[in-house]
Amino acid sequence: MVDLVADLGEGFGAYTMGDDAALLDMLTSANVACGFHAGDPRIMDTTVRHCVERRVAVGAHPSFPDLVGFGRRAMDLTPEEVRTDVLYQVGALQAFAVAHGTRVRHVAPHGRLGNLVAVRADYARAVVDAVAALDESLIVLAQDGELADAARARGLRVGIVGIADRAYRDDATLVPRSEPGAVIHDPDEIARRTLRMVTEGVIQSTGGKDLPIGCDTVLLHGDTPGAIALAGRIREQLLAAGVRITSLDDVLSGKGA
Amino acid sequence: MVDLVADLGEGFGAYTMGDDAALLDMLTSANVACGFHAGDPRIMDTTVRHCVERRVAVGAHPSFPDLVGFGRRAMDLTPEEVRTDVLYQVGALQAFAVAHGTRVRHVAPHGRLGNLVAVRADYARAVVDAVAALDESLIVLAQDGELADAARARGLRVGIVGIADRAYRDDATLVPRSEPGAVIHDPDEIARRTLRMVTEGVIQSTGGKDLPIGCDTVLLHGDTPGAIALAGRIREQLLAAGVRITSLDDVLSGKGA
Amino acid sequence: MVDLVADLGEGFGAYTMGDDAALLDMLTSANVACGFHAGDPRIMDTTVRHCVERRVAVGAHPSFPDLVGFGRRAMDLTPEEVRTDVLYQVGALQAFAVAHGTRVRHVAPHGRLGNLVAVRADYARAVVDAVAALDESLIVLAQDGELADAARARGLRVGIVGIADRAYRDDATLVPRSEPGAVIHDPDEIARRTLRMVTEGVIQSTGGKDLPIGCDTVLLHGDTPGAIALAGRIREQLLAAGVRITSLDDVLSGKGA
Amino acid sequence: MVDLVADLGEGFGAYTMGDDAALLDMLTSANVACGFHAGDPRIMDTTVRHCVERRVAVGAHPSFPDLVGFGRRAMDLTPEEVRTDVLYQVGALQAFAVAHGTRVRHVAPHGRLGNLVAVRADYARAVVDAVAALDESLIVLAQDGELADAARARGLRVGIVGIADRAYRDDATLVPRSEPGAVIHDPDEIARRTLRMVTEGVIQSTGGKDLPIGCDTVLLHGDTPGAIALAGRIREQLLAAGVRITSLDDVLSGKGA
Repeated sequence: MVDLVADLGEGFGAYTMGDDAALLDMLTSANVACGFHAGDPRIMDTTVRHCVERRVAVGAHPSFPDLVGFGRRAMDLTPEEVRTDVLYQVGALQAFAVAHGTRVRHVAPHGRLGNLVAVRADYARAVVDAVAALDESLIVLAQDGELADAARARGLRVGIVGIADRAYRDDATLVPRSEPGAVIHDPDEIARRTLRMVTEGVIQSTGGKDLPIGCDTVLLHGDTPGAIALAGRIREQLLAAGVRITSLDDVLSGKGA
Repeated sequence: MVDLVADLGEGFGAYTMGDDAALLDMLTSANVACGFHAGDPRIMDTTVRHCVERRVAVGAHPSFPDLVGFGRRAMDLTPEEVRTDVLYQVGALQAFAVAHGTRVRHVAPHGRLGNLVAVRADYARAVVDAVAALDESLIVLAQDGELADAARARGLRVGIVGIADRAYRDDATLVPRSEPGAVIHDPDEIARRTLRMVTEGVIQSTGGKDLPIGCDTVLLHGDTPGAIALAGRIREQLLAAGVRITSLDDVLSGKGA
Repeated sequence: MVDLVADLGEGFGAYTMGDDAALLDMLTSANVACGFHAGDPRIMDTTVRHCVERRVAVGAHPSFPDLVGFGRRAMDLTPEEVRTDVLYQVGALQAFAVAHGTRVRHVAPHGRLGNLVAVRADYARAVVDAVAALDESLIVLAQDGELADAARARGLRVGIVGIADRAYRDDATLVPRSEPGAVIHDPDEIARRTLRMVTEGVIQSTGGKDLPIGCDTVLLHGDTPGAIALAGRIREQLLAAGVRITSLDDVLSGKGA
Repeated sequence: MVDLVADLGEGFGAYTMGDDAALLDMLTSANVACGFHAGDPRIMDTTVRHCVERRVAVGAHPSFPDLVGFGRRAMDLTPEEVRTDVLYQVGALQAFAVAHGTRVRHVAPHGRLGNLVAVRADYARAVVDAVAALDESLIVLAQDGELADAARARGLRVGIVGIADRAYRDDATLVPRSEPGAVIHDPDEIARRTLRMVTEGVIQSTGGKDLPIGCDTVLLHGDTPGAIALAGRIREQLLAAGVRITSLDDVLSGKGA
């Protein structure tokens, strides 16, 4: 059992980003931009509506406040600034969810904030404080790391994101993007890694070791035609292997059972 | 019975606006800025916390997206843009309300948007669509006009705002700010007009007529030391006249009874 | 003799807009976005560098301050706000021009501001005040209307923009976009209209009249593959008809001679 | 001989910051905000006009793009982003200088960017690249450090800013703000330190050593009534000691002679 998730609604005003329409049919969950790195009220409204129509679970994708940098640049915020920025963004998205008869199901920090909450305990706690204050039934989406630990310690459910197109070191940390080989580009290899990650719970490290790895949801991309095709292929392959593709709620309930 | 309301949380980042601390003790409701004309996540968080501590009801004060113009400049938005901008802003404020154990009680459009919803039926409907989709127990704060009419037609409760420092024409419309005498500056006169408005339900027009006028809440200001002093004086005078100062919820329930 | 111009550099951060690379080879002038409706410092720097490399004259494309609305929504600014917003934007672009060894040659208001300066004398004067205060050798790009008149009255040079894909009424005003038939979509007809506009100085109205029309520069588009192809075709057709395609400076000097 | 400088024009829209009017009479130079951490086109226009009226030299005060953080939060920009952000901001201010018949005389990075250019050689070079590309007669305002070194290496003039209200370690670096005693609050001590800095070229370290220190300009503050009074007192005291207060141009020419 696994959930399939991707970042959606990352346009802004007259600008578009990615092929949301093509992705929507493949997903069970969506990380929806909330206006700080991408997204605006019209795009959020439309994206949530499309998610509801296709039965895709809506998640919030809060970011550092940096539209021109698309949330990819580190900003030296205080934990209090992180906490309040997350509250603001998730709250804004909740309004569109309510207006379309659903509710926000998960929170997945975007971009550089997403990287930092995996290693900074103060930022991790700030995100967890915001999420827990809003709705204790919200699922926190994260890689293994500080955010996942802090969320579990607070009693929140955690969905571990499997990232098949990034290289892992022997110690189970990601090879930084600044190093060669950090990102895997070969579609065959990505598809193979995804299948093993989901069905066997392992991913091979750069040193050739099989690392045990959680994977409640697989992160798909839609920013290029190739990415869309690969997403479809991964989906088909999982189905062919007998994996049930279902909502994160189901996946986490299944594990708990 | 009357509610006392003022605009709060209108600073931004390092900037402050008005003396929120001095006003808070006089109010029963607050219009809290939501980040589009003023306010940021830290200020929203602090303002809501202070409101909860002083038992002041939290309301949303959504605006045109125009920080540099403080929401005072007309923007030619489509009704759909108004609707989604209002959803976004009210949702963001709801997050802080929930985090502080309360909920947003009313919505009062700010500045030029507030002027336009009184006369543009399409904008009025857009605001009502947003409010009704979010929470049908929300009160719409407005002067008599299109917004009040549209809200009532949708079954929403309406709180009529009494504005004692503006001149009224014989037809009960406000003298535009561009005309001489539009704004009344004499504190004695403002205090007198407020008292009549609340206790007798009338306000004198520029032509000397006593106009019947609703007043569920009195709008106070806090942007100058003189304004703070006047606010306190209005409050004392209402109490001395035996008027009960209480939440908008109470005022509207009392009318309904 | 005619100049060919298009809007360039209208991306923002991670977002792209149009195919600047394909357009650049066809142009003699560019309207470069200055950050208020589109464009950011990196994009401005790159766009100006590309213009210098291809010998395309750099012009400023100032806008209302409305990134999410792409400068297409009217804002009720004071003339003083228009004047200072234009100064800010043109000045910012001048820095990139100087850094790349050139200078800004013209100013062409964007979007809704561009529409309004044609009919609002106060906005037209505000733009002219800004341009004249900065550099009296700057050319003002405009349709016939208030801005062109105000610029000439101030002694500034004016380049009249020919718009071949819009319908003209018998009184030489554009059919508003809200009316059917306002925009002409047939490439053949647009190409034909462009050629007559440039070589004969006339354009046919919706009533069938040949209207005399100035055309110092032809506005090309690059936002779709079809638009790029049409731009190339218009260029080839003008060359085939013996029209010299050259800078606005040359075109205006030629007329003056 | 010394210049007196302060940060001016740091309001935004309806917001004010500091008492520019009171400071203006004491200054020979101003660091004018350029819109990224504070300042907007109206405020920039007014500030430059006031500077020209009082014969105060106009300098640019470029910042990280962070209005809500007032430019005080580190952002992980690339050097190329720093270079282009500085070009944009200085260019925008130049437009107002030209419109008021003057020109920008110096560039002084603001806030956290100002701290980082003192210690990051890549950011220092990025600022110098922008300044040198714009106008080689611009003076770079800096503390001793990477920016001053890079500017001198490029042949630009450097004005060293003396900061009398900050504690210095024995190695001539500032005590970080996070440590106790970093900021000196006693007006008498600040005034004494300023006088020695200007007349003797030394400042006492926390270890009691007299450190040789450059001081071409003294940084004054205007954000509180106490700060304004202190600024006036420092000015009077310097004059009483026979120090000539004059423009940075004069100060640097005097040193060169």
